[in-house]
Amino acid sequence: MSRPHFTPLVERLPATIPFVSPEQQQRALGRPFSARLGANENVFGPSPRALAAMAQALPECWMYADAEHRELREALAAKHGVPFENIIVGEGVDGLLGLLARVLVSEGTPVVTSNGAYPTFNYHVASFGGRLVKVPYRDDHEDPDALLAAAAREAAPLVYIANPDNPMGTWWPASKMQAMIAAMPSDSVLCLDEAYIEFAPEGTAPEIDPEDPRVVRMRTFSKAYGMAGMRVGYAIATKRMIAAFNKVKNHFGMNRIGLVGAAASLADADWIPQIRARVEAARGRIGEIAEKNGLSALPSATNFVAVDCGRDGDFAKAVLSALIERGVFVRMPFVEPENRCIRVSAGTPEMLDAFETALPQALAEAAAALESAEA
Amino acid sequence: MSRPHFTPLVERLPATIPFVSPEQQQRALGRPFSARLGANENVFGPSPRALAAMAQALPECWMYADAEHRELREALAAKHGVPFENIIVGEGVDGLLGLLARVLVSEGTPVVTSNGAYPTFNYHVASFGGRLVKVPYRDDHEDPDALLAAAAREAAPLVYIANPDNPMGTWWPASKMQAMIAAMPSDSVLCLDEAYIEFAPEGTAPEIDPEDPRVVRMRTFSKAYGMAGMRVGYAIATKRMIAAFNKVKNHFGMNRIGLVGAAASLADADWIPQIRARVEAARGRIGEIAEKNGLSALPSATNFVAVDCGRDGDFAKAVLSALIERGVFVRMPFVEPENRCIRVSAGTPEMLDAFETALPQALAEAAAALESAEA
Repeated sequence: MSRPHFTPLVERLPATIPFVSPEQQQRALGRPFSARLGANENVFGPSPRALAAMAQALPECWMYADAEHRELREALAAKHGVPFENIIVGEGVDGLLGLLARVLVSEGTPVVTSNGAYPTFNYHVASFGGRLVKVPYRDDHEDPDALLAAAAREAAPLVYIANPDNPMGTWWPASKMQAMIAAMPSDSVLCLDEAYIEFAPEGTAPEIDPEDPRVVRMRTFSKAYGMAGMRVGYAIATKRMIAAFNKVKNHFGMNRIGLVGAAASLADADWIPQIRARVEAARGRIGEIAEKNGLSALPSATNFVAVDCGRDGDFAKAVLSALIERGVFVRMPFVEPENRCIRVSAGTPEMLDAFETALPQALAEAAAALESAEA
Repeated sequence: MSRPHFTPLVERLPATIPFVSPEQQQRALGRPFSARLGANENVFGPSPRALAAMAQALPECWMYADAEHRELREALAAKHGVPFENIIVGEGVDGLLGLLARVLVSEGTPVVTSNGAYPTFNYHVASFGGRLVKVPYRDDHEDPDALLAAAAREAAPLVYIANPDNPMGTWWPASKMQAMIAAMPSDSVLCLDEAYIEFAPEGTAPEIDPEDPRVVRMRTFSKAYGMAGMRVGYAIATKRMIAAFNKVKNHFGMNRIGLVGAAASLADADWIPQIRARVEAARGRIGEIAEKNGLSALPSATNFVAVDCGRDGDFAKAVLSALIERGVFVRMPFVEPENRCIRVSAGTPEMLDAFETALPQALAEAAAALESAEA
């Protein structure tokens, strides 16, 4: 018996997931990682005030969360100087990307992104039957001009860009993003994923005009705020867009304790500057380790560094595998030529010690493996 | 400017949410409720072992959760005697109902449920364009025979029943449910929502055959396990069904701390019997309060009691409004004749004191209001 029939779209979709989680890899490896540097989590964790607020709220977890998420939305509204009605909270940016795809994408809808950009966006678009149109990176940057040209050519209602970018860590100044928003084709909306914005230099985020229908901004508590496991992201968009999300979303999907932690994080003005400093130090150390091994690190406005392994994707893949074998979890870009790099998250000094120890061994093993394959 | 264009389905959907949360009602009221008895939350909270495990895990919330949720799934597999591959974890039953609708429902797909049953199921079905076919309750029970007949007549791929039922609290023995599963039309699947099963008498849950394609079982940590705010539910279904869910779900949507708490709850074998005893005592007290006011309480296999207010829906609505005005949050069924009742969750003694104080006043006020309206 193989009933019931799934929808034609679901029948057709491949079995795929955007990322294999480090826990899955640890089970395959048979032992825990010593350095968790692959998922761009914030190893420095949440603000102590957020931790204290969440611990205090735990006994109240028998209650569903407020379906309007009013307290957090009002705190975010105050932070960004926008009405709370222009803010929607979701289960991480991933959950919100799913909603965005759902309200805009039907079978065959063209959607524009960069080849090698965030795969979870692609996953959601494909799961609603969208047709992905991908433009190449240029000089390790997502290319706003190419994205705009593809959007116009395809009459795509949805375009994705991350600024700063993941997986390369590169970024554009606010002026470039503002120009991109202004040049968006009519009937099209830019998904501006600013998950890493708190790590970027001042002047990277364009001003927020919440009623500009050309853009939806995505932000998260998973990166700088150190709460990836609590699943709290938000979008800033027109009230019309948020009304569309509200027609289809799971209204009782948010974790009550995560909402408390997010609001407490915002109230701790000292925390983000401390995190920025620690992440900057870690990025510097990753650069030094790369250089000591004859590799180069790309400049980064995020909490990770793309390390150019100096050869092709096969070599970088071999380096990555050898690092993982040594308990150092990292990831890498999916496509050429960005896949000459491995992507290393800003770790604690101890984690970066492990990376420093493993990298020369991994490079040697990768070089030997490729030579032996070529021989 | 009103761009972009949403999908035709989204454009057509009404702005609706399945429930107004008590926090929204409190904001409208301008003060907090003294008794939170409307959302069938478990006021007795989670197991102390779950609370301790979650508190201990909080500092690790910088990490995303395992995308496979393996630890919890293996614990559930052991509890239910099924392979972990037949279990999927989601953001509460609500999240899983959304996935179930998504993989089975296209525009115009007929879906069968009872008129007045769980509105969130209806919400998700409608949001994918499904056509709801509703059969009446019979004697305050969902009616398996009528549901089966409608499913066969409409060739519906999806049928919903909750056992025990919400909002009436009534239930069928396992034998009746087993017969319903056996009688499901081919190409159709029964969504058997067992959110309240831990409160029901032994012999209410039919045996679990995880590879039976005729049924998907929904369970939750939101009710007996007292963790509604952590958002952890699960479904037991065929591997084929779970593979379909995995094609479309948000793989990184679960809260890491919620997963820890759920696993710890399962390990605390003493907790559920204690909760059952406290809930049973609270149900008894609600019955006494009803009787003292000349009302009758329906028998219940859940953590709530439907109190028959003895007149029509307008009267029960007036009673509910007067209770809310007095700080006692309750809800009520949506349709006739079940809407002669109000639905009161098993509360703490203090909450039920508040209910006991407010009920006679609310009844008097409702009677006076209706008389004045009729005059």
